[in-house]
Amino acid sequence: AGDAAAGKSKSAVCASCHGQNGVSQVPIYPNLAGQKEQYLASALKAYKAGERNGGQSALMKPQAANLSDQDIADLAAYFSSLPAGGK
Amino acid sequence: AGDAAAGKSKSAVCASCHGQNGVSQVPIYPNLAGQKEQYLASALKAYKAGERNGGQSALMKPQAANLSDQDIADLAAYFSSLPAGGK
Repeated sequence: AGDAAAGKSKSAVCASCHGQNGVSQVPIYPNLAGQKEQYLASALKAYKAGERNGGQSALMKPQAANLSDQDIADLAAYFSSLPAGGK
Repeated sequence: AGDAAAGKSKSAVCASCHGQNGVSQVPIYPNLAGQKEQYLASALKAYKAGERNGGQSALMKPQAANLSDQDIADLAAYFSSLPAGGK
């Protein structure tokens, strides 16, 4: 299972686009704060596997390629734990 | 541009999985409430184009295939307008 505290320690590169609070500053980047943990892990796995194309996948596939399954679980737990909407 | 009121009128099929308030009851389905409008439109276009695979794409590709560009814009405007976290 994912460890949100471990995820936080791995989240700096994510936060540069998706926001420190998981709410993106850029309209084309999705908010992650309060998103479903299972969905976040599924999305990262699909990027890592090269299955998820279109959209901003040219940015996300190389990021996800660097992540282990544990990294993915930890990051999903962390961003899911943040309050939706950044409040 | 998307019309949130028109999007609401087209959202019943979405709400059956993603929740009436845009917060899913099912952990693998992402919340849509308060998500970035541009991101939601981009995601639906990637499903419609068959670019977005993996995850729950087997469910979403046939749904998106039925949507016009205006439908996509309207639905993105509607779900983006809902309060994040369903509050």
